[in-house]
Amino acid sequence: MPRGTGSRGAAAGRRPLVLVSHRLCPYVQRAAIALAEKGVPFERRDIDLADKPAWFRAVSPLGRTPVLLVGDDAIFESAVICEYLEETALPRLHPPAALARARHRGWMEFGSALLDRIAAFYNAPDEAALARSADEIRERLRQLEAVLGEGPYFAGASFRLVDAVFGPVFRYFDVFDGIDGVDGFGFWHGLPRVLRWRAALAARPSVAGAVRDDYPALLAAFVAARGGALARRMGAAARAA
Amino acid sequence: MPRGTGSRGAAAGRRPLVLVSHRLCPYVQRAAIALAEKGVPFERRDIDLADKPAWFRAVSPLGRTPVLLVGDDAIFESAVICEYLEETALPRLHPPAALARARHRGWMEFGSALLDRIAAFYNAPDEAALARSADEIRERLRQLEAVLGEGPYFAGASFRLVDAVFGPVFRYFDVFDGIDGVDGFGFWHGLPRVLRWRAALAARPSVAGAVRDDYPALLAAFVAARGGALARRMGAAARAA
Repeated sequence: MPRGTGSRGAAAGRRPLVLVSHRLCPYVQRAAIALAEKGVPFERRDIDLADKPAWFRAVSPLGRTPVLLVGDDAIFESAVICEYLEETALPRLHPPAALARARHRGWMEFGSALLDRIAAFYNAPDEAALARSADEIRERLRQLEAVLGEGPYFAGASFRLVDAVFGPVFRYFDVFDGIDGVDGFGFWHGLPRVLRWRAALAARPSVAGAVRDDYPALLAAFVAARGGALARRMGAAARAA
Repeated sequence: MPRGTGSRGAAAGRRPLVLVSHRLCPYVQRAAIALAEKGVPFERRDIDLADKPAWFRAVSPLGRTPVLLVGDDAIFESAVICEYLEETALPRLHPPAALARARHRGWMEFGSALLDRIAAFYNAPDEAALARSADEIRERLRQLEAVLGEGPYFAGASFRLVDAVFGPVFRYFDVFDGIDGVDGFGFWHGLPRVLRWRAALAARPSVAGAVRDDYPALLAAFVAARGGALARRMGAAARAA
């Protein structure tokens, strides 16, 4: 099947696509951003991951969001959804050369690994674990700084699928950076290219629109409910305010 | 870039490809199987993941195998390597229709999740954790049974990329099944389609050839070194022999 010749119709010609979602899930955001960048109409259907409905279990073998419903078919896993959209809807968001495309896909996987470290950060039970997670995040951000060019996006002036992965990554820090003492971890010290990228992604309408307006409050409540070291710092800040 | 028009030359026309490997890594095996199925010549270069050489850290941002060296370029992450090979070397191992391809890619991710559960199984510290991991593995195998057809492969008579993922998954059980009492977990009860698939994959030359002849002994030694509940069962079996 030739890439990109399916036109928008292959993805959107039938019933509107449905993106099965969770309000905070960064993997859902990837798919929502790709859909928005390609101008594919879709309906977002949020579910409660703590109380998964039976219809969701039937379409998501791993019980994860996102799932993309395409007519009677269900596509699961965000990377798979992004590749499907890339193959069926324009404009293309991957670079045209196979090696460059592989490089972008590799850094998308790197973004998933960074999300694992972010989860370890907000789940850290104590200050020592929090500091270790912060070290790991800093190391990953430094690796990004080393591969970025002049920007503003990962590969220059054009927004690519890999950018859809890191918008949701950096969004966490819009909340974390406001927590008492988190600036002491120095996540952003000496990373001008990463900071420029972060700002460009935050300003991109597809990235900004991939979550609800109350996302910061929802994420703060979610982190507080984890009950870990980061939650305790938030509690201390709230009591001091 | 059109899929599949690059011919074999795009992947193999320059210096031979180098697959940076670890002797037991199931993700390396995926790439090795895809290379063998496509008849792409490559050199395998094993590294010690417990003592990573500096050149490896430079080409693997996440410190993982496999990495595919293509001339002066390095492709990291097994799923990315498989897609690159698919785009540059024939025969095609993904189905031609975009929705079917997405389905196959989704089940490849499911295979990765199953590998996580297998790691939890051989790392389980005690019998209770071992039993819990066994439950999770059984549930995943039942899900596979429910989506398989007449076989012998995932999607029928043709070997596909998704098959390259599950050959290495089932290979673990060639060792596990021989450990004292593991048959009591009933991994294979009531799963005729999965068993037929497992047998077809074990007989496939590309799958059989993706590891060294001493793989079973190496895996047994690796599991023993984990020191968990499964290792203790192996020790009991060894003492009883």
